[in-house]
Amino acid sequence: SANRLAGFGTSIFSEISALAARYQAINLGQGFPDFAGPAFLKDAACSAINADLNQYAPSTGLPTLRAAIARTWERHSKASVDPDAEITVTSGATEAMFAIIMALINPGDEVLIFEPFYDSYPPNVLMAGGIPRYIRLHEPRWDVDFAQVRAAITPQTKAIILNTPHNPTGKVWSRAELSQLATIAIEHDLLVISDEVYDRLVFEDYQHCSIATLPGMWDRTITISSTGKTFSVTGWKIGYAIAPNSLTEAIRRVHQFVTFASATPLQAAAVVGLNAGEPYERQLLQFYNARREQLVKVLRDAGLYVLPPQGTYFVMADIRDLGWENDAEFCRYLISEIGVAAIPPSAFYHDGYQSGMVRFCFAKKPETIAAAAEKLKQLG
Amino acid sequence: SANRLAGFGTSIFSEISALAARYQAINLGQGFPDFAGPAFLKDAACSAINADLNQYAPSTGLPTLRAAIARTWERHSKASVDPDAEITVTSGATEAMFAIIMALINPGDEVLIFEPFYDSYPPNVLMAGGIPRYIRLHEPRWDVDFAQVRAAITPQTKAIILNTPHNPTGKVWSRAELSQLATIAIEHDLLVISDEVYDRLVFEDYQHCSIATLPGMWDRTITISSTGKTFSVTGWKIGYAIAPNSLTEAIRRVHQFVTFASATPLQAAAVVGLNAGEPYERQLLQFYNARREQLVKVLRDAGLYVLPPQGTYFVMADIRDLGWENDAEFCRYLISEIGVAAIPPSAFYHDGYQSGMVRFCFAKKPETIAAAAEKLKQLG
Ligand SMILES: CSCCC(=O)C(=O)O
Ligand SMILES: CSCCC(=O)C(=O)O
Repeated sequence: SANRLAGFGTSIFSEISALAARYQAINLGQGFPDFAGPAFLKDAACSAINADLNQYAPSTGLPTLRAAIARTWERHSKASVDPDAEITVTSGATEAMFAIIMALINPGDEVLIFEPFYDSYPPNVLMAGGIPRYIRLHEPRWDVDFAQVRAAITPQTKAIILNTPHNPTGKVWSRAELSQLATIAIEHDLLVISDEVYDRLVFEDYQHCSIATLPGMWDRTITISSTGKTFSVTGWKIGYAIAPNSLTEAIRRVHQFVTFASATPLQAAAVVGLNAGEPYERQLLQFYNARREQLVKVLRDAGLYVLPPQGTYFVMADIRDLGWENDAEFCRYLISEIGVAAIPPSAFYHDGYQSGMVRFCFAKKPETIAAAAEKLKQLG
Repeated sequence: SANRLAGFGTSIFSEISALAARYQAINLGQGFPDFAGPAFLKDAACSAINADLNQYAPSTGLPTLRAAIARTWERHSKASVDPDAEITVTSGATEAMFAIIMALINPGDEVLIFEPFYDSYPPNVLMAGGIPRYIRLHEPRWDVDFAQVRAAITPQTKAIILNTPHNPTGKVWSRAELSQLATIAIEHDLLVISDEVYDRLVFEDYQHCSIATLPGMWDRTITISSTGKTFSVTGWKIGYAIAPNSLTEAIRRVHQFVTFASATPLQAAAVVGLNAGEPYERQLLQFYNARREQLVKVLRDAGLYVLPPQGTYFVMADIRDLGWENDAEFCRYLISEIGVAAIPPSAFYHDGYQSGMVRFCFAKKPETIAAAAEKLKQLG
């Protein structure tokens, strides 16, 4: 096999989900809803299939979907975007990130990645021949030390990968933090690749802000989002990248020769989903607010110290009060002995750093979280 | 944008389909059916959606789909395959080819590509830092000169990309030809990446043969196929790669960080499609036999010299008797003045070689081909 594979193994999500299945554990590990997507969305997909929208979509995405993405972007960011020139539909946000990196990163380019990171970022940079440079967010509040960001920059630095709302910590970058990052990006002429797939899952009075909308940032930012989290259909794999035309052209050139296009009828259904707009988003958030509260209480009752997440559908819980240090060991114990699966975040650090926490997912039915609560009582 | 993009522009299929739409031409260009996929398959997809099979599939593909692929492979090739260790589901054959090349080709490795080629092969090799080496098939019968193949091999040669049945020429590699290629691959310790997406579309008494089944070839062959062509749903993007476990592991490592997984409900539907087996395949072939005959006659009646294809849903037609030399000029004229779209195969040669032919697609309703016939009368 090619040398570029030396740096990476098997996705932690595949590993934990396989283990969870083996022990029939309640799976609060891999992030996906265990409840149905909305009926109107499923109906829309079936209608598209029965209307014979089953041949290749344009490589850039169905025009109707790009238009719906543009309207959604404009509603949330108050900035306009050209669906023909600045939006590319991809096979999930995962393909978007990969195509962006292949399109923009040369061998030897350095890319800043905040830790803990989503696990595909470093392999994506490595596949492009780039060099990942890591900057740790500081627990318990996952603060950014901007002096560390500045110190990590060299003449080879080409881009920063941002993720807000942030998986696995639930941190939602504030406008003030994004402004500081923007200042650095502009000063050093860096691209920002911003993964915002949890953009609709932000709690209390925290606000999601796209760094692309800050002054001077549009021309250097690529924003990624998708429909999987917002519409509870993570298996549909409809993602997208928003970027100025010159960057979009490069991304499209890669995308056409990686997957060419994404599932046509599911793209058509995503249009109907996005058009449901604000009322749908409000309902979704109400559901997740309740699940977040439920899981935070369950984990606290089990003796785990928890800071409620600002966004995403994940909670980080501290295992040290229970006498554990190693997250992977704890997760193996939790799956095999307690019957609940969680993700060990050391998989999201390049050096296996132990934060003393593990990640639980609350994209689950109330009954699922309640059943996990029963199991977790054995922890005490 | 990254330097790796220097070598490639926009897919010819996007270009011609856009031009066909602009002139409202009858589109016999990009290869996709203009008729519906089978009702039982569409029903299966809707059932999967309504059964809430809408979350991430395993990155390697649904176990039921890998099992169905294995059964299909065993039925046709009389060789066995392990669905857990040797099959990977991808987002179309396009992603399969890309992931295979990224998994197995190092910078500086040379890859042999037969011309005319499917247009994603050279960009895929370039994205991996590999060096494409081209070997022309010789018209009118698209013969392989094996002395040329031997002459193209250097110590850097790592792999040969094979495509049978062959797009755009319709050539089905004979067992004798494949044996000669196998001998060369074994002698020089080369991998063979075999794109067989038209495996079910083979006419008269020609036979599709997978090079992986020849003696000594299993361990060095990756076979690609997909469900788009066989089930007339090119927009579903469910492809797969079959390879021995060591190669499969490398492919899966790339795939998990390129798209992670492919659309779950469409994978579930593909199981139902593959299980329809031989009776379905026979019916499909009967339909395509009739379309092939129809289009060959239409093109001949329009004054174009045609050798009927052995496989695929494409026909190459000679434009020289009509006084044309340049295929791209002819296609522009054909779209804008005659109202029929075809593909200029010079896009499938690294040096823009003019074969004197253009490619027409017969994955079309009888009415569509008949309507094209009316338009083509203006050619005479
Ligand atoms: C692609 S599987 C991973 C799902 C996810 O985003 C997560 O669990 O963090
Ligand atoms: C991915 S669009 C191209 C379809 C096709 O295989 C062809 O026209 O050759």
